[in-house]
Amino acid sequence: MPGRRALVQSQILTAAADLFRARGYRAATLDELAKTLRMSKATLYGYFRSKEEILAAIFHRTMSLFEEGISAIRRGSATPDEQIRRVIRHHVRAVVAERSFLTVFFSEEANLPAHLARHITARKARYDRTVLGIVQAGRRAGVIATSHPRLLVFALLGMSNWVYRWYNPRGVWDADAIADGLIALAERGYASARRSDLTPTRLARLSRDIRALHTLLGSKRPGRRRP
Amino acid sequence: MPGRRALVQSQILTAAADLFRARGYRAATLDELAKTLRMSKATLYGYFRSKEEILAAIFHRTMSLFEEGISAIRRGSATPDEQIRRVIRHHVRAVVAERSFLTVFFSEEANLPAHLARHITARKARYDRTVLGIVQAGRRAGVIATSHPRLLVFALLGMSNWVYRWYNPRGVWDADAIADGLIALAERGYASARRSDLTPTRLARLSRDIRALHTLLGSKRPGRRRP
Repeated sequence: MPGRRALVQSQILTAAADLFRARGYRAATLDELAKTLRMSKATLYGYFRSKEEILAAIFHRTMSLFEEGISAIRRGSATPDEQIRRVIRHHVRAVVAERSFLTVFFSEEANLPAHLARHITARKARYDRTVLGIVQAGRRAGVIATSHPRLLVFALLGMSNWVYRWYNPRGVWDADAIADGLIALAERGYASARRSDLTPTRLARLSRDIRALHTLLGSKRPGRRRP
Repeated sequence: MPGRRALVQSQILTAAADLFRARGYRAATLDELAKTLRMSKATLYGYFRSKEEILAAIFHRTMSLFEEGISAIRRGSATPDEQIRRVIRHHVRAVVAERSFLTVFFSEEANLPAHLARHITARKARYDRTVLGIVQAGRRAGVIATSHPRLLVFALLGMSNWVYRWYNPRGVWDADAIADGLIALAERGYASARRSDLTPTRLARLSRDIRALHTLLGSKRPGRRRP
């Protein structure tokens, strides 16, 4: 259970993410942040030594959110295609639940100090490789079809992460409805109706042929297994 | 043909977008920009009165790039599904060709003055509605299948725009290869192999059953049309 210090730290980060998202990191000041939190600046400095340290903590917390998500998904015994569904769902839920964190994460990278930017880049690359590993396991299992696994990873994460730009908390869709829609699109594509319209037609034609044969033969339907 | 003034303005915007992308808009200074351009600050001020005016021009130019693209796509006589392919391709090409502009556009919105932010929001909403119109025309024509047209629009623009975050100019994929991959995924989905692998197999099995029955019966294949 987190102690009081960790709780206050978390409150500060949430308020800071909201402020940075609304005003931009560089434009926002620690005076504004302290005022929002009804906290003296001296108290605020007791938790974070600088605005940059707060930005770094926002980046670390956001990366951890994704890393913990993918670890839980990998630990389970779900098939690769189910794991990919869960990755999409985890991203959409994270973006919806922590929109300010994600907006800062996606917008303020240029303001990270160089050593931290390199560290975050490495963690992101490791994360992408883990998702790529699931896609490749899915290809081997024959449940994921793609000739460009890396492009598939970026496409899936892109459509899921992009939710941070258009999600409306007062809208009709919650995170799971959005995730369901994205999963359906990613799995079947938007041109699926045309294809699945043809297959029943061809099946119906074959069934008619078989019925005609039965009539000609005056027999019952033959068994499916042959020697 | 653009005059010299327009050419210099365009050079300034390109250099500014590169600088803002690398350093962040707020951190970048007009001194740095003038130095990069080998131009005096006085000359620079002859083209743009402030850093904010440069940011505004970057946003306008980026919006115009997308608006001109969609106008050209709408003007043609392509079917709605082909129009959607062209929208995806236009986004990927724009992101790859103008990565700095797009990065600033996607990251620095919080730094726009309020009246300009509202103006850009309205133009973006109009753009999204135009793409939505194509999707809805595609549904009516039976070539686009989706129960959530708006979600489909955001998913397609999201996977295409996200390229700005991972595109590597030294990588093996050019814009058109990326667009081809995204179009294939968006149209058919990554689970297509399972379906398309199974369906032909099942259809072929049925055909074999029918042929075997014909052989047993000693008859020709019955005609397809019956009263």
